[in-house]
Amino acid sequence: MEATSKAKQPTSVSSLMREIEHLGRDRTRGGYSRPVYSHPELELREWFLAAAQARGLDIEVDANGIIWAWWDRADGARSGALITGSHLDSVPGGGAFDGPLGVTAALAAIDLLRSEGRTPSVAVAIAVFPEEEGSRFGVACLGSRLLTGAIDPDRARSLRDADGTTFAEASAAAGFDPEHLGPDPARVAQFSAFIELHVEQGRGLIDLAGPVAIGSSILGHGRWRVSFTGQGNHAGTTLMADRRDPMVAAARLIVGIEEIARSVPGARATVGRLEPVPGGTNVIASRVDAWLDVRHPDDEVTTALVERIRARAMEVAGEQGCEATLVEESLSPTVSFDASLRDTLQRALPDAPVLDTGAGHDAGVLAAHLPTAMLFIRNPSGISHSPEEYVEDVDADHGARALATAIMAAGGDEA
Amino acid sequence: MEATSKAKQPTSVSSLMREIEHLGRDRTRGGYSRPVYSHPELELREWFLAAAQARGLDIEVDANGIIWAWWDRADGARSGALITGSHLDSVPGGGAFDGPLGVTAALAAIDLLRSEGRTPSVAVAIAVFPEEEGSRFGVACLGSRLLTGAIDPDRARSLRDADGTTFAEASAAAGFDPEHLGPDPARVAQFSAFIELHVEQGRGLIDLAGPVAIGSSILGHGRWRVSFTGQGNHAGTTLMADRRDPMVAAARLIVGIEEIARSVPGARATVGRLEPVPGGTNVIASRVDAWLDVRHPDDEVTTALVERIRARAMEVAGEQGCEATLVEESLSPTVSFDASLRDTLQRALPDAPVLDTGAGHDAGVLAAHLPTAMLFIRNPSGISHSPEEYVEDVDADHGARALATAIMAAGGDEA
Repeated sequence: MEATSKAKQPTSVSSLMREIEHLGRDRTRGGYSRPVYSHPELELREWFLAAAQARGLDIEVDANGIIWAWWDRADGARSGALITGSHLDSVPGGGAFDGPLGVTAALAAIDLLRSEGRTPSVAVAIAVFPEEEGSRFGVACLGSRLLTGAIDPDRARSLRDADGTTFAEASAAAGFDPEHLGPDPARVAQFSAFIELHVEQGRGLIDLAGPVAIGSSILGHGRWRVSFTGQGNHAGTTLMADRRDPMVAAARLIVGIEEIARSVPGARATVGRLEPVPGGTNVIASRVDAWLDVRHPDDEVTTALVERIRARAMEVAGEQGCEATLVEESLSPTVSFDASLRDTLQRALPDAPVLDTGAGHDAGVLAAHLPTAMLFIRNPSGISHSPEEYVEDVDADHGARALATAIMAAGGDEA
Repeated sequence: MEATSKAKQPTSVSSLMREIEHLGRDRTRGGYSRPVYSHPELELREWFLAAAQARGLDIEVDANGIIWAWWDRADGARSGALITGSHLDSVPGGGAFDGPLGVTAALAAIDLLRSEGRTPSVAVAIAVFPEEEGSRFGVACLGSRLLTGAIDPDRARSLRDADGTTFAEASAAAGFDPEHLGPDPARVAQFSAFIELHVEQGRGLIDLAGPVAIGSSILGHGRWRVSFTGQGNHAGTTLMADRRDPMVAAARLIVGIEEIARSVPGARATVGRLEPVPGGTNVIASRVDAWLDVRHPDDEVTTALVERIRARAMEVAGEQGCEATLVEESLSPTVSFDASLRDTLQRALPDAPVLDTGAGHDAGVLAAHLPTAMLFIRNPSGISHSPEEYVEDVDADHGARALATAIMAAGGDEA
């Protein structure tokens, strides 16, 4: 296989992105909705398997649903392997690049190295991680957390999506025995490093006027579900004084969250998802669930912020005659990427500035177990998790070239 | 048919309610979700057609999807007909009785009169009106509004549900040519009166310790869609200072709505439905739609309340760098039921107190065209539009007896 595929011409990242641009378009929200193991995400996975197969890569799909496409050494040895890749799932109404750019650029980088006859000294695998966004089951980086033991498999199995389907059921439907979900330390021990390429999700490279940056750290972040319970009733027959309306309590909390976050430099706190139950126009809600996302570079500050928000939730619930609970769904400390790997990448890509990011990534989860690094590609809109997210074709190809350079720098050249 | 069906024994309302208790149960919210022309609502309509047929009633389903089940005079004359009935659709997670009680009690009342050999001098029809709640297409009493010309058929056809399906498409799927939707004045001219029996949606009959009340009026009410538009973005990478977050604007408005409504005696204002777009936990929303329900006995006060809320929406949108729109979806003035018909019912049911209601009903729409009246049945929870809504079996049978008495009083006894 290696002999025939070496002859393959390098591929532009944009031509790969075009192959998947029709999958999972969201006509209501705009952009893409590709929740893990949904029809469009499964089609994206099929597309990747076919693309990997066409390149003669050796495909494994592990018990956690992670796809590994191996560019093996001639002797087949995989110890010390270098991992790249990203994810194919999206937030609801997300952009085209968040996730898929890291996968297409990895394919293009391998094509590029092969077309130039360059081979790393270690095996290279492109990984596709399921549920990076946590947009279906509420826990971000679920695939890499399962792989590394950062989440208990029992808890993962019992996570539910908005329709009540468990992750165990969704995994089974996608062909994975949910009993086999869980840590795979032998696999992780094979890896020498993980380099994830990703669209930048802020404005750093706009201001620096460059196409590619090297990641320094990921802001600590977590998500919590806040539930207010009151008394569902008729919106017309129930006097204002007789109400225990959880929507008013939730609204007071959201106003409070913004005030609290603005008072702490560097903090970000967001409620982007809120679900009243039952959700009828002429019905006072009986319950409102709101999801809280909090991030700060200092993990102790994040904890303190969440405690202030919890206290405010109890206070506003009491004022409305409601009850409140605040449950942690995930929490990731601030991650600094491996300094030695970052130095290697900086030497190989001397023009690339170093940037941190407020966004979570599988690289942040894997960083606890092996040296990891990230490459960010300029996003001229500065906007992410939105249809406006964008990458110029030429910047995407700069990214693939930078990833190829990084693979050779980190994986060692045979030559 | 008449001869054989006269022999039928009277039916308890509870036995009829048991025939439909399995249809449209909502396992997530509790209670029932029976949106118009959904699978469970269509099953309820089929159940009613069978129940009417079993009683030898003559069935018509008109161009607006309203079912009419006729207990005809021997000579077949329908002019001056007396109408009873209600609806079978529900709010999401609603109770068992709101709507179906008026339909089952009407069947039981006819059984009762027949078992006693009593026949009104005019034809009687049981009507089942579609989309009384407005929970699917946003306009309450849509069937009776179409029948009476209170909504433009073009507007009705273009109403959309949460999935984007138009009312025209849903009507066509249910077997009604959407081109034929619209006013039917010849039909309305046949009717001498409409009497709707309904579960009480407040605490009036709990305090008065009686099973049945006669309605006096329906509070004026309307619903408006408030949309805030901001900038969708990543919850981790977007600084608080750089945000235009429509969720914060919507939350500030909900807090303001409660303050405004509490400041005006007799006012009720509610946000029970709210939808962030795209609705991801780690995504600042790009748009938030919230639905506002406002009611007050004085229509001028309702208008003034909505204008204060509109001004507040513009103010909070501006503070967040967002834009706001507030669009009326429906508006019904306060309706006083026909005084003469009410007097007739009070003479026939001397123990029944007279109560007004904050809830809208098809009787309120029809009141502009013919004498209408309502009977309310005690609800020991005092709670409505919620699984807790309840009616004791014995009170339901009191209701059917009262409705039979009202039919004979308003429709005139042949004897």
